[in-house]
Amino acid sequence: VRVTFAELSQTELSDLVASLRAAYGELSARGLKLDLTRGKPSAEQLDLSTALLDLPGSADYRAADGSDVRNYGGLRGLPELREIFAPLLGLKPESMIAVGNSSLELMHDYLMHAVLFGVPGGSAPWRDVAFLCPVPGYDRHFSICAKLGMEMIPVPMTADGPDLAEVERLAADPKVKGIWCVPKYSNPTGEIYSPETVRRLAEMPTGAEDFRIFWDNAYAVHHLTDEQQEIEDIIGAAQAAGHPDRPIVFGSASKITLAGSGIAFLGASDANLDWLVGHLSKRTIGPDKINHLRHVRFLESPQGVLDLMAKHRALLRPKFDLVGQALTDELADTGVATWTTPRGGYFVTLTVRPGCASRIVELAGQAGIALTPAGAPFPHGKDPQDNVIRIAPTFPPLTELADAMAALVLCVKLASAEQLLAA
Amino acid sequence: VRVTFAELSQTELSDLVASLRAAYGELSARGLKLDLTRGKPSAEQLDLSTALLDLPGSADYRAADGSDVRNYGGLRGLPELREIFAPLLGLKPESMIAVGNSSLELMHDYLMHAVLFGVPGGSAPWRDVAFLCPVPGYDRHFSICAKLGMEMIPVPMTADGPDLAEVERLAADPKVKGIWCVPKYSNPTGEIYSPETVRRLAEMPTGAEDFRIFWDNAYAVHHLTDEQQEIEDIIGAAQAAGHPDRPIVFGSASKITLAGSGIAFLGASDANLDWLVGHLSKRTIGPDKINHLRHVRFLESPQGVLDLMAKHRALLRPKFDLVGQALTDELADTGVATWTTPRGGYFVTLTVRPGCASRIVELAGQAGIALTPAGAPFPHGKDPQDNVIRIAPTFPPLTELADAMAALVLCVKLASAEQLLAA
Repeated sequence: VRVTFAELSQTELSDLVASLRAAYGELSARGLKLDLTRGKPSAEQLDLSTALLDLPGSADYRAADGSDVRNYGGLRGLPELREIFAPLLGLKPESMIAVGNSSLELMHDYLMHAVLFGVPGGSAPWRDVAFLCPVPGYDRHFSICAKLGMEMIPVPMTADGPDLAEVERLAADPKVKGIWCVPKYSNPTGEIYSPETVRRLAEMPTGAEDFRIFWDNAYAVHHLTDEQQEIEDIIGAAQAAGHPDRPIVFGSASKITLAGSGIAFLGASDANLDWLVGHLSKRTIGPDKINHLRHVRFLESPQGVLDLMAKHRALLRPKFDLVGQALTDELADTGVATWTTPRGGYFVTLTVRPGCASRIVELAGQAGIALTPAGAPFPHGKDPQDNVIRIAPTFPPLTELADAMAALVLCVKLASAEQLLAA
Repeated sequence: VRVTFAELSQTELSDLVASLRAAYGELSARGLKLDLTRGKPSAEQLDLSTALLDLPGSADYRAADGSDVRNYGGLRGLPELREIFAPLLGLKPESMIAVGNSSLELMHDYLMHAVLFGVPGGSAPWRDVAFLCPVPGYDRHFSICAKLGMEMIPVPMTADGPDLAEVERLAADPKVKGIWCVPKYSNPTGEIYSPETVRRLAEMPTGAEDFRIFWDNAYAVHHLTDEQQEIEDIIGAAQAAGHPDRPIVFGSASKITLAGSGIAFLGASDANLDWLVGHLSKRTIGPDKINHLRHVRFLESPQGVLDLMAKHRALLRPKFDLVGQALTDELADTGVATWTTPRGGYFVTLTVRPGCASRIVELAGQAGIALTPAGAPFPHGKDPQDNVIRIAPTFPPLTELADAMAALVLCVKLASAEQLLAA
């Protein structure tokens, strides 16, 4: 018989809180020190790319075109590396660059140059502008906007991507210059944008003639099921709709090979690429092409990337299963929480009773389990409902993850029961 | 008997021009394709760091503090790498960061953030500001200022560094926010800043309370003689003078290990570092720490760097000797050119008759010898006297360098004689 917390009498609730507090006391006494905060790969995942630590090898420093990758130059990155990642990111090798070790840098630098100089198709630098922020979303996207003084306008997520009616309504304002999108296995809620979402984002009229879709395809090949989810081609859709400069596609090898030593990618129209590379040419003489060659030798082909990702999946799937099982076992009957079962990506999102998320994160923290701060997936770190918690299960070993989840569900129950009792 | 071109009669000049034109015709017919444009290391220099291509090795991914360098994090760079480079750059490991593969990036990003946000000790973003540019100087420094709309005010170089009376006079203007300096083996003219220069730059009153010295110590260990030239400690001098935030010191391993895959360094006061790292923390989750560990394993110690630089010197010295000899043999008696004999760094500067530099570069280009564009060492690429040519002898093999120098001196003589004849 399922009895939710809300159906309990005051006496039953009071007893429940007492027993949960006792359990929480025991938990705190264990002196745990566990971390579910960030989407970091585990040591076992990094071990999958151990071969990179010996590559390219001392006799190997020639690119396919014969050039010496040890020397300066090559602002767009090694063509043969772009050829490997292009099909995986829905790009063409000649319409993308491979630069640096972090796609976040490319998003940041695109926006910083937009603020200072304006972008192709626009008539002025981006001052006093706004960005649409589907929520919950990725905190580091929002931090860039906050840094640059851009207004952030939250847009609700649906199962198919951001609420399109709302996006179309808001984008009519010329002040609104763009939207953040994580179109596949969205961070943190795992949605996959539907074909209609992609098409309408590409086609919609916008008030700003220089509107941009920041298409952070961070989890393009980061599947957690046998079924490789695909999304529509935003570049092609935007070209077909007469908005070729609208999408800026980002990708990264950081969660494919080595987190701090991967490669970042940006794909866009020629106008965007020429504009960005022109600006970056004042900043650098070129990327670390040896790391490009290293990745080419290791990954070899798009299929090589997919084979590697299958190994990641074998390591990650048990962790996500454990999280789902722990939540189901302990919370399914309580009526105080729901959660996502992502088909890819790096996160599980736990939705709790409004007003409880920050208390749960606080309780967990006091018991030694670090969680992403409540509110992080919202602009300025403010969750209006205070009910979203992002769980990052990838980094800790399974045994630690089990401990952390047991602690987390206890904190969820305690905070929820306390809230109901006080109501 | 030394007879300069200027002492020749019109007839003699006319004969000279005719014979030089004939020689130039033969030169052009050879169809050479040589490049003296940029300060790139040669393949032999890159070979000195071949071991890096196998490092760190598959079992080696732990930093000295036990952390896994393969994962995210560590915004300031690996401490043990900073310890190796700190003494060579006159810095303390805790007062520097190691980030990216290009010190130019760090200069660019410091200035870009200054323009958008202002710097510690200042009261406003850097809009409508000016920078002092000792000339001849480094074209890429000037390109950053040009990109950001900063006014560039040329300051003459002396044998001891920039003309200090002029610097002090100009720095009294609050609009002047900084100065570019390459204090050792200056690019392109090779000067070494005297102790008095360093002290006065650190001590001088400035109109701007947030004045910065961009101290690009690009050639800190790039000696061409047995005598390792040292410069005074700008950080200590500025601290002693009560201007701790004034100097920003840059360094790079690009011309020590591998040009495109080195490490960049920035050293400054805590206020500057905290400000910059705070801004960069919105841009990246950390540098490529595997490349840091790779460099630690390869270089081992400050002495390891110096030992490596001695091998560079053994390769570079014959090239600089060849350039000096070619210029002496062919131009010493002509009175139409003077040149530098640098004790370190990457360039020789050739000073020709006013109005001749661009013609010489043009003649050389038409004969297949690419030279840095005349004017490049000046703000906006405009040499007011049109008499400075930067020679970069490091990249070509000796035989090609000999061919290129023979061609260059011929072009110098031809342009000079033609100018004198037309006068």
